[in-house]
Amino acid sequence: MTRQILFVTGTRADFGKLEPLALAARDAGFAVGFFVTGMHMMDRYGRTKIEVHRMPGVAVAEFLNQREGDPQDMILAKTVVGFSDYIAEHRPDLVVVHGDRVEALACALVCATNYIRCAHVEGGEVSGTIDEVYRHCNTKLAHVHFVSSDAARARVMALGEAPESIHAIGSPELDKHGAPSGVTLAEVRARYAIPFDDYGIATLHPVTSEAAQMGAQAAAFFGALEASGKNVVVILPNNDPGSEAIFRVIDALPADRFRRIPSMRFAHFSELMKNAACILGNSSAGVREAPFLGIPSLDVGTRQTNRAASPSVHHCAADDGAAIAAFLACEWGRRYPSHAAFGEGRAADRFVTAVQDPAFWAAPLQKTFRDVG
Amino acid sequence: MTRQILFVTGTRADFGKLEPLALAARDAGFAVGFFVTGMHMMDRYGRTKIEVHRMPGVAVAEFLNQREGDPQDMILAKTVVGFSDYIAEHRPDLVVVHGDRVEALACALVCATNYIRCAHVEGGEVSGTIDEVYRHCNTKLAHVHFVSSDAARARVMALGEAPESIHAIGSPELDKHGAPSGVTLAEVRARYAIPFDDYGIATLHPVTSEAAQMGAQAAAFFGALEASGKNVVVILPNNDPGSEAIFRVIDALPADRFRRIPSMRFAHFSELMKNAACILGNSSAGVREAPFLGIPSLDVGTRQTNRAASPSVHHCAADDGAAIAAFLACEWGRRYPSHAAFGEGRAADRFVTAVQDPAFWAAPLQKTFRDVG
Amino acid sequence: MTRQILFVTGTRADFGKLEPLALAARDAGFAVGFFVTGMHMMDRYGRTKIEVHRMPGVAVAEFLNQREGDPQDMILAKTVVGFSDYIAEHRPDLVVVHGDRVEALACALVCATNYIRCAHVEGGEVSGTIDEVYRHCNTKLAHVHFVSSDAARARVMALGEAPESIHAIGSPELDKHGAPSGVTLAEVRARYAIPFDDYGIATLHPVTSEAAQMGAQAAAFFGALEASGKNVVVILPNNDPGSEAIFRVIDALPADRFRRIPSMRFAHFSELMKNAACILGNSSAGVREAPFLGIPSLDVGTRQTNRAASPSVHHCAADDGAAIAAFLACEWGRRYPSHAAFGEGRAADRFVTAVQDPAFWAAPLQKTFRDVG
Amino acid sequence: MTRQILFVTGTRADFGKLEPLALAARDAGFAVGFFVTGMHMMDRYGRTKIEVHRMPGVAVAEFLNQREGDPQDMILAKTVVGFSDYIAEHRPDLVVVHGDRVEALACALVCATNYIRCAHVEGGEVSGTIDEVYRHCNTKLAHVHFVSSDAARARVMALGEAPESIHAIGSPELDKHGAPSGVTLAEVRARYAIPFDDYGIATLHPVTSEAAQMGAQAAAFFGALEASGKNVVVILPNNDPGSEAIFRVIDALPADRFRRIPSMRFAHFSELMKNAACILGNSSAGVREAPFLGIPSLDVGTRQTNRAASPSVHHCAADDGAAIAAFLACEWGRRYPSHAAFGEGRAADRFVTAVQDPAFWAAPLQKTFRDVG
Repeated sequence: MTRQILFVTGTRADFGKLEPLALAARDAGFAVGFFVTGMHMMDRYGRTKIEVHRMPGVAVAEFLNQREGDPQDMILAKTVVGFSDYIAEHRPDLVVVHGDRVEALACALVCATNYIRCAHVEGGEVSGTIDEVYRHCNTKLAHVHFVSSDAARARVMALGEAPESIHAIGSPELDKHGAPSGVTLAEVRARYAIPFDDYGIATLHPVTSEAAQMGAQAAAFFGALEASGKNVVVILPNNDPGSEAIFRVIDALPADRFRRIPSMRFAHFSELMKNAACILGNSSAGVREAPFLGIPSLDVGTRQTNRAASPSVHHCAADDGAAIAAFLACEWGRRYPSHAAFGEGRAADRFVTAVQDPAFWAAPLQKTFRDVG
Repeated sequence: MTRQILFVTGTRADFGKLEPLALAARDAGFAVGFFVTGMHMMDRYGRTKIEVHRMPGVAVAEFLNQREGDPQDMILAKTVVGFSDYIAEHRPDLVVVHGDRVEALACALVCATNYIRCAHVEGGEVSGTIDEVYRHCNTKLAHVHFVSSDAARARVMALGEAPESIHAIGSPELDKHGAPSGVTLAEVRARYAIPFDDYGIATLHPVTSEAAQMGAQAAAFFGALEASGKNVVVILPNNDPGSEAIFRVIDALPADRFRRIPSMRFAHFSELMKNAACILGNSSAGVREAPFLGIPSLDVGTRQTNRAASPSVHHCAADDGAAIAAFLACEWGRRYPSHAAFGEGRAADRFVTAVQDPAFWAAPLQKTFRDVG
Repeated sequence: MTRQILFVTGTRADFGKLEPLALAARDAGFAVGFFVTGMHMMDRYGRTKIEVHRMPGVAVAEFLNQREGDPQDMILAKTVVGFSDYIAEHRPDLVVVHGDRVEALACALVCATNYIRCAHVEGGEVSGTIDEVYRHCNTKLAHVHFVSSDAARARVMALGEAPESIHAIGSPELDKHGAPSGVTLAEVRARYAIPFDDYGIATLHPVTSEAAQMGAQAAAFFGALEASGKNVVVILPNNDPGSEAIFRVIDALPADRFRRIPSMRFAHFSELMKNAACILGNSSAGVREAPFLGIPSLDVGTRQTNRAASPSVHHCAADDGAAIAAFLACEWGRRYPSHAAFGEGRAADRFVTAVQDPAFWAAPLQKTFRDVG
Repeated sequence: MTRQILFVTGTRADFGKLEPLALAARDAGFAVGFFVTGMHMMDRYGRTKIEVHRMPGVAVAEFLNQREGDPQDMILAKTVVGFSDYIAEHRPDLVVVHGDRVEALACALVCATNYIRCAHVEGGEVSGTIDEVYRHCNTKLAHVHFVSSDAARARVMALGEAPESIHAIGSPELDKHGAPSGVTLAEVRARYAIPFDDYGIATLHPVTSEAAQMGAQAAAFFGALEASGKNVVVILPNNDPGSEAIFRVIDALPADRFRRIPSMRFAHFSELMKNAACILGNSSAGVREAPFLGIPSLDVGTRQTNRAASPSVHHCAADDGAAIAAFLACEWGRRYPSHAAFGEGRAADRFVTAVQDPAFWAAPLQKTFRDVG
């Protein structure tokens, strides 16, 4: 009997991680579906659900779990109800969630409560904001773990998880960055109306615990970029609390040098990165994909705190104009050797190897804490 | 300005733990309130909210979070919504949750999401069922931890919590068991119509992950007790999935030797325990209070797996009739020295000392993972 | 067996209507309870649940059904869930709802869906805003109707309700206004710090369908009062959409001539009315109680459209400064004969007579449409 | 600017009504979408959402609003939340709901509360069960009414609706029954494995207010059919409370003479009806489509009480075996002239004419009660 694997995606970011795993599972003969919710469903964030629908041979269920202004815990409650009803109707054999957002937490809670096997991708990492807490809850709720590095594996073990339930596969989106994108930079620039070819890429997501300060941080950060005279492609922030203030700052930037894009197709974004002079802001792309691709990056603020160390990654406060100016002066256009702490781009292969093992499906659904050392 | 401390209680069991802490905090000058939900609100389980209302000088808010038959995740979602609305209206300075039930998890999720300071009581322990998972989630969601033993402290540290946020205060209900109950056994027997004075106490709660087997386990367990010819006070189970089957078995037991009681006032239960020949079943009373009081106990099945070790605690499978008979033959009426692994009955003092420290309130609400070793 | 009657109250206004009925039912031997929700539970609106708790011999259950900013349909959904769980646990014999607010609608929906007998008080009236729609839905959902006038009775019949299910009892709060208040004006002024004894009473509630215009309407209305030089007691508005803008206008009024009060105890409000020079605004007090008491009133805007006609009631647009000035000049301090279209203050007697009739309880719960004429 | 019309469908029955209207609106240039929920989404009821997806040029949004066993009011609450979020994101110009089920009520509540224009199809009719109540609530919530007969128009007017808001278009599914089905009986029999060509069609839906008696009614009704020796195609019941007991009876019928079908494509069902010897049970097909097609029908029980009168429609109690036998003896295979009380099959034309009138869109969203006579 064909096993059903259901992936949960709430943002273009986690879809970029899950897509290689899902395609590989589909090609290996599993019945693959996606539960699409969160920002994917909302016009404000580009209604990126369309990208999920583009995967051939994959079933897609949509669930609108919020409206603008909803508190995070209301989103949590609505997603628990909607996903629980979905699970009751469809009974997948495995649910795969990613990372640390409220949608992943809601679905992991439903799985744990109903003894549905649940795999968590990219647990064991550390960050700031509420993500830090949600991610480790997901680890405690999930039955199996696909982590991206040895450091993450060690942390998942410290959390009491069974060593045999942890698979270090690397960071899945590196699979795609490691392969040719399939599009040219000229095509990318044409599709997204990017008027320049010497550019940095900047993204500033809200830090939930600093929501009230995000306007000031955004003003300082983008102010420093504006002062530099450089060209910048700005990828718009996600919808966490604090995003309104960032949007207001971004909306006031000069349009000729700051090209604002709500979201990009993955292949186009990958090609854009490979040709960027540098990456700026607090997106995970700066601390994960950038080092893999050898592109200098400046990580600002606390959102990615402790998430990664690599020679090509620099850090400063969001309002440290001097540090931002220095980074732009020294690093713009530089290239580094590829950094392999998050894998060599073979995560999907390793994922399929794991789920093809009969022992994977025989592991008990009742969890027990494994004391370390 | 007086600080507001809000305790969350969902069962008579966790109220027994939280009451000493709440009374001590009240006496120390804090404004103390209770958010009463879960089984407390339901007729089937004795509508024990009345016990919470008996505390003078403590504000009580009630929230009915379920009906019979509700799936656990629907209860979770409803409690998240109700508690989030409550918090938005009342803004306590500290929320205290206990243990590992769905109500505690729901409220801890709300606190973490809204950056409301949250303390978790009796984290770091291990058990079977979904409780095992919920408890460790609560640890990851809470900002401060009041644990009952050194083993629990070590486990909370392994989970990445800051050492300075962990307070080993012992098991709070031992404070009450350690003091005179204030009632006589004769009064207890009269109030609860217990016709015998040589008796064991038995409780069998459902094990969520074994819900389908609970009827058979209950039949075997109570069958062995019935065959022994002993007198038994049966405390009725909680409302987790599987409870219906247990109720059916209990309802068929001979009434003259099996006195069924939905719930008891704490003082009366404490006095009843102190005079019991032994404790049987899978309640935590058997592995925690019984050793402290020096009473022999037989822990059956997986519910309390790994929760405690003490010379007076014996273990067997719920359907191991021979082991049950042997325990009754050898241990009935025996007494042991008090076992102090879970404290000496001073938990409330230690709790108050902690919350009176200004550093307690200055600790950051943004959590960071502390790697051990 | 004693029959259980559960009253639902969401505001101080509907409680003023339901209290006389509840007290009379209690005195006639029914087991009377209140389900208290809506504005009663919120600090912003005076947390008037305390008034419900003051009734001796009446059980009170509280349910917080919203936070500030919640859309009305989310409040509806939350109240449906909460009241349905409550009904499942407590199974009253009769639920009594009042009027046209979202809480009454939610509870009537639950009753109809679960075939719980439901009585609706003050159906068959007409107004503006969404209340107009909710009220008639309540009529179609309820099994029995206590209306306040012959005009209302005719409209409930047109809606297809059975004539024998309709009881014209008058407007219940007139029972209380018709009796001595039990307090003196001096006591009222002292308790609520009202510095003047020659005053009008003004209330401006939001009109849901004109939410965006409420700020302008409030500015014009209170501006005209300010220009008049008269003293005014301002009762603060309810929490319907549009209330924020009204609050902003009220907050800017000169405090020496405009005494702002979130809510008043009924007896005190009644005494204050009896001594007022006039009533102004769009509260139902102006079109119902004022004519009964013979006090001139100016009804502004569309909220009470078509609700009542009486010689003492005048109408104008909220921003018709000339009409407001003219009313204040001609009517201030005038007195009219009592107007009896809404009963003679004996509603509670008639309510009890109805519920003491065995036929009341034998009427079928399956409704059928009665075509008129 | 193209106007957006969103249709809400919860069952194959209401989709059969709405599809002709939607297709005609699409062809007239409106942007047409469907919000698909209720039984359409559930495997048990044939997961008929696939039929909605088959319409070219129509956008489809899915919403799973329940699991098996959910109380009706929980389904109501979940649908209110889900549809309100959907409306907030998509803002249609007009929402069209049909009939009297909980999904239609939930969506009409959301529209009324948010002042979104809402049209109700087939109001003003009468029936038994909770449908009777929900249908008239929908009338009071909706802004415009598409009714199927003059009798329905009169009742909607009695309910206080404005005459200019009421359009008598006939019963929309008759549009499709009046046209050739496009399939042959041989194709129908082959697709649905119907082994006989001389057959009646039977459907027994639960009556909500008689849920506890449905097992006995089903046993008597299907017992009489079994005793007759006739061949019967059984269309399975909907998911209202009481359906479990009916399913149990149906599951025990002899398979060679009782062909059970969860749901059928409309064209196939229409062709099956046109060739049936008679229609039996309590589906609306027996009192509406059957007379239009001139086929004898036996309506049993209270579900369709007062819904229609026509020479070809007979009535009896569900357990009146003698009356069922007499009907089968006298009416099997007979044919009547077409009955036109519910229109001549031109509902879609009339619907489009209405929505193409600018006055349709200019009508106020604030409703006022129109007293009749």
